Amino acid sequence: MNLSTLLFGRRLANREHEDKKIGWIEAVPAMGLDGLGSSSYGPEAALTILIPLGALGVVYIGPVIFCIVALLGVLYFSYRQTLAAYPTNGGAYVVAKENLGEYPSLLAAAALMIDYVLNVAVGVSAGVGALVSAVPSLHPYILPLCLGIVLLVMLANLRGTGEAGWLFASPTYLFIICFLGAIGFGLTGIVLAEKPAPVVPPPPLGLAAQGATIWILMHAFASGCTAMTGVEAVSNGMGSFRQPVMRNAYITLTIIVVILTLLLGGIATIATVFEIGAMDQTKEGYQSVLSQLVAAVAGHGAFYYIAMASLLSVLCLSANTSFVGFPRLCQMVAADGYLPKAFAQPGRRLVFTVGILFLSGFAALLLIVFGGITDHLIPLFAIGAFLTFTISQAGMTVHWRRRSRGYAAKLTMNAVGAAATGVALVIILTAKFAEGAWITLITVPLTIAILKSIKNYYRSLQRELRKPGPITVEDVEPPTVIVVTETWNRLSERAIKFALTISPDVVAVHLIRLGGPELDERETALREEWRVEVEEPIAAHGLKPPRLMFIPAPYRQLHEPLLRLIEKLDADSPERRVAVLIPETVKDKWWQKLLHMNRAGRLRAKLVKLGGPRLTVATVPWRLYREEQEAG
Amino acid sequence: MNLSTLLFGRRLANREHEDKKIGWIEAVPAMGLDGLGSSSYGPEAALTILIPLGALGVVYIGPVIFCIVALLGVLYFSYRQTLAAYPTNGGAYVVAKENLGEYPSLLAAAALMIDYVLNVAVGVSAGVGALVSAVPSLHPYILPLCLGIVLLVMLANLRGTGEAGWLFASPTYLFIICFLGAIGFGLTGIVLAEKPAPVVPPPPLGLAAQGATIWILMHAFASGCTAMTGVEAVSNGMGSFRQPVMRNAYITLTIIVVILTLLLGGIATIATVFEIGAMDQTKEGYQSVLSQLVAAVAGHGAFYYIAMASLLSVLCLSANTSFVGFPRLCQMVAADGYLPKAFAQPGRRLVFTVGILFLSGFAALLLIVFGGITDHLIPLFAIGAFLTFTISQAGMTVHWRRRSRGYAAKLTMNAVGAAATGVALVIILTAKFAEGAWITLITVPLTIAILKSIKNYYRSLQRELRKPGPITVEDVEPPTVIVVTETWNRLSERAIKFALTISPDVVAVHLIRLGGPELDERETALREEWRVEVEEPIAAHGLKPPRLMFIPAPYRQLHEPLLRLIEKLDADSPERRVAVLIPETVKDKWWQKLLHMNRAGRLRAKLVKLGGPRLTVATVPWRLYREEQEAG
Repeated sequence: MNLSTLLFGRRLANREHEDKKIGWIEAVPAMGLDGLGSSSYGPEAALTILIPLGALGVVYIGPVIFCIVALLGVLYFSYRQTLAAYPTNGGAYVVAKENLGEYPSLLAAAALMIDYVLNVAVGVSAGVGALVSAVPSLHPYILPLCLGIVLLVMLANLRGTGEAGWLFASPTYLFIICFLGAIGFGLTGIVLAEKPAPVVPPPPLGLAAQGATIWILMHAFASGCTAMTGVEAVSNGMGSFRQPVMRNAYITLTIIVVILTLLLGGIATIATVFEIGAMDQTKEGYQSVLSQLVAAVAGHGAFYYIAMASLLSVLCLSANTSFVGFPRLCQMVAADGYLPKAFAQPGRRLVFTVGILFLSGFAALLLIVFGGITDHLIPLFAIGAFLTFTISQAGMTVHWRRRSRGYAAKLTMNAVGAAATGVALVIILTAKFAEGAWITLITVPLTIAILKSIKNYYRSLQRELRKPGPITVEDVEPPTVIVVTETWNRLSERAIKFALTISPDVVAVHLIRLGGPELDERETALREEWRVEVEEPIAAHGLKPPRLMFIPAPYRQLHEPLLRLIEKLDADSPERRVAVLIPETVKDKWWQKLLHMNRAGRLRAKLVKLGGPRLTVATVPWRLYREEQEAG
Repeated sequence: MNLSTLLFGRRLANREHEDKKIGWIEAVPAMGLDGLGSSSYGPEAALTILIPLGALGVVYIGPVIFCIVALLGVLYFSYRQTLAAYPTNGGAYVVAKENLGEYPSLLAAAALMIDYVLNVAVGVSAGVGALVSAVPSLHPYILPLCLGIVLLVMLANLRGTGEAGWLFASPTYLFIICFLGAIGFGLTGIVLAEKPAPVVPPPPLGLAAQGATIWILMHAFASGCTAMTGVEAVSNGMGSFRQPVMRNAYITLTIIVVILTLLLGGIATIATVFEIGAMDQTKEGYQSVLSQLVAAVAGHGAFYYIAMASLLSVLCLSANTSFVGFPRLCQMVAADGYLPKAFAQPGRRLVFTVGILFLSGFAALLLIVFGGITDHLIPLFAIGAFLTFTISQAGMTVHWRRRSRGYAAKLTMNAVGAAATGVALVIILTAKFAEGAWITLITVPLTIAILKSIKNYYRSLQRELRKPGPITVEDVEPPTVIVVTETWNRLSERAIKFALTISPDVVAVHLIRLGGPELDERETALREEWRVEVEEPIAAHGLKPPRLMFIPAPYRQLHEPLLRLIEKLDADSPERRVAVLIPETVKDKWWQKLLHMNRAGRLRAKLVKLGGPRLTVATVPWRLYREEQEAG
């Protein structure tokens, strides 16, 4: 068992693809982690904006969250229709490609890709941030912790979704149980008690520094909308579901949206009743909204710590949603020629290895550049999500319009979805422009430009390699074969023997690096050896013996004089092609590579790169040590 | 003009080798920097050992330095004889190889190699250490400064000795002028004045903590001997001298030894008269011995700063001596098969690029590991030098003994040299054992073991590739040619056409990654296309049309099913060899490599590695974009 088998498991056959698909029980953690995790920072972000309003701010959190939940409802019904209409893949990229054309689809692809990368960086750094504030002694290790989690999630995903399941399922379901439990318990207490009081009262809210304005409420809404990122994950991940696909997808989407709604509604209600507000993160004694909420409902007992630990895990692992979506998206985009083909190639475990590595690498780069603290990237993140929502719903609207009648209700639903998410997008863009939303105006067009130029490259390649039509066989004259030799040994013997089987016209070329009288001596000796060992036995067999040529290489590079010789041969007999045979020792071990100059490999690369179009370069391999036994 | 031409200069022809050789004016800086620079730390190291003796210590510095200078004299005359006896290369490795046998020569090689690497690390870090104590604000940049200097010296040497000359000559000659001037001026003052007094008095010496013992004096001698490292540089560098070689070598050696003697003697005299002792480096207000000396003689004027700056440069650049010696030594050792052949290969500028890079890399590694402070490596350094001296002189003694009479004087001279340096070596080893000399007992045998195992590898390789005797031509039956195709395009057309020229027996293999009904459809379509586009035109030409085979690759790796096919073909007709042709697109640009999967390259590597000894693998290159114009 070697290292890669240990790390990634055995190589899977194509037919095992079906076995790797998942049902809703695995899909809720795989696709919902991002959405559920965002319930922790959405309300917190909205309340943070409301801080200047003091105790009054908490009053407004209800209406703000209500708007977000209403939007979530619209999105839920819109996406159900998308899933039904695109049962193999209902991602924004596909929907836009089929209904809106190339550029909208690239816009959706770019927005989603950026979003997925940001989600990994932001999710992991939020989780580690929460962990570090719980255990301050870990503070010096923020970046290593972040990178370690990315590595862990990457390895789990390289093994495949199935295997990754157990890692993500338990914290997700624990999180759901804890927080729905806490909220349910809290709400029951509020309803039953005459005068509900928190177990641990939250810190008192500050005085109002200003009154509520439309701008502040818009801003709070825009911030709160981060709670909705991750809803599109199901539509992008249709390919992962096992049969019955539609049922699994519906159940997954429903569970995610219902739980998210319950969490958001519950948080808003309890926060309002118990007057829980956001605290300034930069000040000492900071406690997150959810931490205050659980303490207010259940006190600082064991439950508090279990709940907070499950929240931490969900945040850390919410990166996983990106690992489900990103490689699949890239595979589709690559299959259409907008990304390198390698993204579309299933790896050892039938997952799209290149996409997973690229996502991990890019997220790790972001984490390294920002030192593991990526809070200010959160606004960017909501923009990507809402851009995707809007394009997807707009695409669906066109989809229904193209059909004949009978789809008016569905069209209306998706149009409402497109309008609602479009308005939200404008609000977020406006409210968050100065905070970093402008960056999307650079990165999205840049990404689209890259995708488009990759497509152009493949298209021109395709044109160049176009079907040639029926083959034209002008002549099948054997080529002139040049065998590169260093001295007369078994390596060159083997190459000469092979050359004789493919052509009667063989030239052995001995390249000369040195000069002076020693050389003349050596040349005479080699010529004599050649005559006795090669020319005479071959001539005795009635074959044309190979010529031996000495070519000076005054600049110690072999390819230049060789290319000149090839040109000359080409000019002398243009009807004959030229093939170069290079004897090569095969190195099995890394240290053997250090002990050889890899002259054969370098010469081959240079000839292939610089040789004319009629040149063929072959290597005659000679495996060290094992050769004798095998040759028998 | 590309980047490498700018950095390293144009590629030189073999015949330009002579032009790159140097005379004594360039050789003194190139080969003497190490020896001259060591005059600054030799006396200082001896005086440091004498610190506990207080003012009494300074009295003993005279006799200690006298012993060192006497040893230097013996060495000078011994080495003159070595140069005369080995006018092409008189390094310890060659002398030991010819007179003492394999293991002594490897011992010399190992000692010298380690010494050269240590010299770079120690010299650069000593120079930077002095610079930093002069300009304390540079303290945070010790390591970057060290690495920067190594890089600079490396680049200069990659360009070649000639070009590196100007960089090293000016500080060397400035150093010689300044310090010989200061010493001469100081001695004149001492002789002329009735009661000589220092311009700036050195700090008063401490009280004697203990009396002088043999052990302390031995220790001081051992430490002072570091002043003699670098004397062997001339004998190792004989290959660099231009005609008349002997004269240039004699003059260089004489200049280096005479100046070193003057410096050591002058330093000892002035230190004794003015009572200059070493100071504790770890205490504040530390001043080096040479700094105190120049101040005592000439005060703290402009001259002081110029002299100290020249000393700094000499220390920093003393690494250059290693860059002259190490690559040449490695070239000889590699030519004998004890190091990878790459060390013996002259690069673009006719210098031994691999040796230079290896030396820089290893020294940089030492600097990084020790954070740029390598003082404690100095003792190791003297051991390497004296080990080399002893082996070299012992070898010369054997050399003269083998001759008939008439060489008694020369034999005696070298025997005295061997004995003297051998005794010194034992003293150094004993005195410095606990301080780190024990490390040589590990590194030297380890290096010898590595050299020896490399030799064994090459020897077994040689045995394997031994002269095969006259070629045996059993049959020249053309091979079965397998052409790997992906689809019918111009790439596969070209490969098929070439295959037809070398064999009538061509098999086109189409590897199938997918399964299911789509595949069957595709297979039918491809078969039909193949029949119309390939088989019929070729059959119409009266040739045997290539067979088209579909081979499933359920694990998405192409080489496994292909190897199975080759095995089958081999079994079916064992008299035919098999050749695989892989069409390959040639990528000129790095970004093209990102956009292609390099399937051809990976398949080729796998086949070469895993295929049997009878397999030949060829690539048919197709250059993108430029193909059409060139093919015409």
